[in-house]
Amino acid sequence: MSTGYHVAVVGATGAVGTKMIEMLEKTTLPIKKITLLASKRSAGKTLVFKNEPLVIQELTADSFAGVDIALFSAGGGISKQFAPEAVKHGAVVIDNTSHFRMDPNVPLVVPEVNPHALAQHKGIIANPNCSTIQMMVALEPIRQKVGLSRVLVSTYQAVSGAGAQALAELTRESQELLAGKAADELNPEILPAGSDKKHYPIAFNALPQIDVFAEEDYTYEEWKMINETKKIMEDTQIKVAATCVRIPVFSGHSESIYIETKDHASVEEVRQWISEAPGAVLQDDPSQQVYPQALTSVDKTETFVGRIRKDLDVENGLHLWVVSDNLLKGAAWNSVQIAESLHQQGLVHV
Amino acid sequence: MSTGYHVAVVGATGAVGTKMIEMLEKTTLPIKKITLLASKRSAGKTLVFKNEPLVIQELTADSFAGVDIALFSAGGGISKQFAPEAVKHGAVVIDNTSHFRMDPNVPLVVPEVNPHALAQHKGIIANPNCSTIQMMVALEPIRQKVGLSRVLVSTYQAVSGAGAQALAELTRESQELLAGKAADELNPEILPAGSDKKHYPIAFNALPQIDVFAEEDYTYEEWKMINETKKIMEDTQIKVAATCVRIPVFSGHSESIYIETKDHASVEEVRQWISEAPGAVLQDDPSQQVYPQALTSVDKTETFVGRIRKDLDVENGLHLWVVSDNLLKGAAWNSVQIAESLHQQGLVHV
Repeated sequence: MSTGYHVAVVGATGAVGTKMIEMLEKTTLPIKKITLLASKRSAGKTLVFKNEPLVIQELTADSFAGVDIALFSAGGGISKQFAPEAVKHGAVVIDNTSHFRMDPNVPLVVPEVNPHALAQHKGIIANPNCSTIQMMVALEPIRQKVGLSRVLVSTYQAVSGAGAQALAELTRESQELLAGKAADELNPEILPAGSDKKHYPIAFNALPQIDVFAEEDYTYEEWKMINETKKIMEDTQIKVAATCVRIPVFSGHSESIYIETKDHASVEEVRQWISEAPGAVLQDDPSQQVYPQALTSVDKTETFVGRIRKDLDVENGLHLWVVSDNLLKGAAWNSVQIAESLHQQGLVHV
Repeated sequence: MSTGYHVAVVGATGAVGTKMIEMLEKTTLPIKKITLLASKRSAGKTLVFKNEPLVIQELTADSFAGVDIALFSAGGGISKQFAPEAVKHGAVVIDNTSHFRMDPNVPLVVPEVNPHALAQHKGIIANPNCSTIQMMVALEPIRQKVGLSRVLVSTYQAVSGAGAQALAELTRESQELLAGKAADELNPEILPAGSDKKHYPIAFNALPQIDVFAEEDYTYEEWKMINETKKIMEDTQIKVAATCVRIPVFSGHSESIYIETKDHASVEEVRQWISEAPGAVLQDDPSQQVYPQALTSVDKTETFVGRIRKDLDVENGLHLWVVSDNLLKGAAWNSVQIAESLHQQGLVHV
């Protein structure tokens, strides 16, 4: 840790924060120092980085002195308050919350798709929503070859996307239902959205609400997928609709995606493009029952693509099934990849 | 049980068969006698019908003497072999397997949608696939008003659709994962399809395979939804595509459905039509987080419809979320409703 960057992780004890630390252990980014920041409640606790104990510090406006790269994943409110402080201290912020994503001055980046957008950064870079990122990794190689006019996605999202407390809720409810408790006696407190009024069981259920409801009766999660897709692909003309659903899976988001391309592509061509695409892994052999699964995606940084089929009615229609670990490529790994790309492009000013 | 029909249930001990007996307890159909039939292995066991014990008999070619209505749900092979025997004995067969569904001489009926098709029966009536039935109940009231040109559906199907052994597998795997066992040590034996080569865990996972793979890399379950929709709606021009996915839910299929109508319909109009439609219940108030859920659909015979939204790009595009108890409306209740409709139309010849 002699030469390299001083990296801070804000929200170090969260579901994503702990994965960020894991990913920083694996990155090729040169790191000279790690600072772990969290709320006062967690300050003083110790986490391990490359076999060395690191004491968590309380996040304050002064936490960023000397920090080169700050990874934020502690909620939109924290990012709103402290990201500008980090920038004032000269750090580049990579923010995993939705707070800055649609700000026209903030690049929204999936490194396999639009790393060039990083050059425009003014101190803050936004990490896209987990469900958007994996869809971009799967669709960009197709878009590059034959264009993309339409995307309809239905998601099967894991509970870890809602944080560590939601994971504990899934575990508790599952145990209680298996022990014979009635569904209406489970007392859910977190899902579908911690900030919303009502809570419903997720164990052995499917909840068609992620985040709160917004315009046109779409949820914010659905709007994120719609708006972020257009921003990342730099094309406001792509038609995008989403239905976002939480299912009782610990980690690994799955997505049923229908697309229409501008020019025709055969299933075999799409399989070839996916197999050659950065960050994507083709898992598509129906004769051998090979297709992506949430359980097998966990702890992997790639996005898995399968069930590629032509639509039976629309000439340029295609169906895909896309799975990735939402805490890694959907959050922690994409953030660290952004840091790597900034470094490679000489865009971190130490 | 003095006047009325002699009803036989074939496959009386299965996940659907036991629900058929429950539904026969609730039906208004006049019943004078119930005969429960199953394999030799189950013969001699006792089930209860309206507080009276009924001894299960072994299914043979001679089981149907005197039977007026025979409800089959013991697998396609059993239906193939024994349904013609039942017809020979003068019974009307209502078959819950896929064996006869696409036979042009066999009506495929959802009583809320096409009860008129029953008049053409030649002894056998097919009960549609569970995932098709609930979609028909939700879409028919819209189709009647503004026509239907396109359906794209992604399913979130419960494990009970794969039978009692699959339910036991979900329970066992869930317990083992919660107890700390690794996902690759679960030894799945049933899902995704008992007859297929490989088996994968369903607990805390999503499996994009229901039934085995067929033409164009669509599964049979997906083909069932496509072909049965066209047959039930008597319109080969409707564009239909499906992606069928099993999720770790015990009972209650959920479906994310995108449709395009021939004429325009507003969200408010669709809500009104659904609220007035037979067999459908509108659960759609985003401001109060009201939407259909698998857990709350269990043991109910209705189909629940919510998350109704306009597509943001396509003038006549609409999105819906449709949930129903797959063992009831998806199987046992729809079969008993067919018997009721046959009775009401004078189509059972005693």
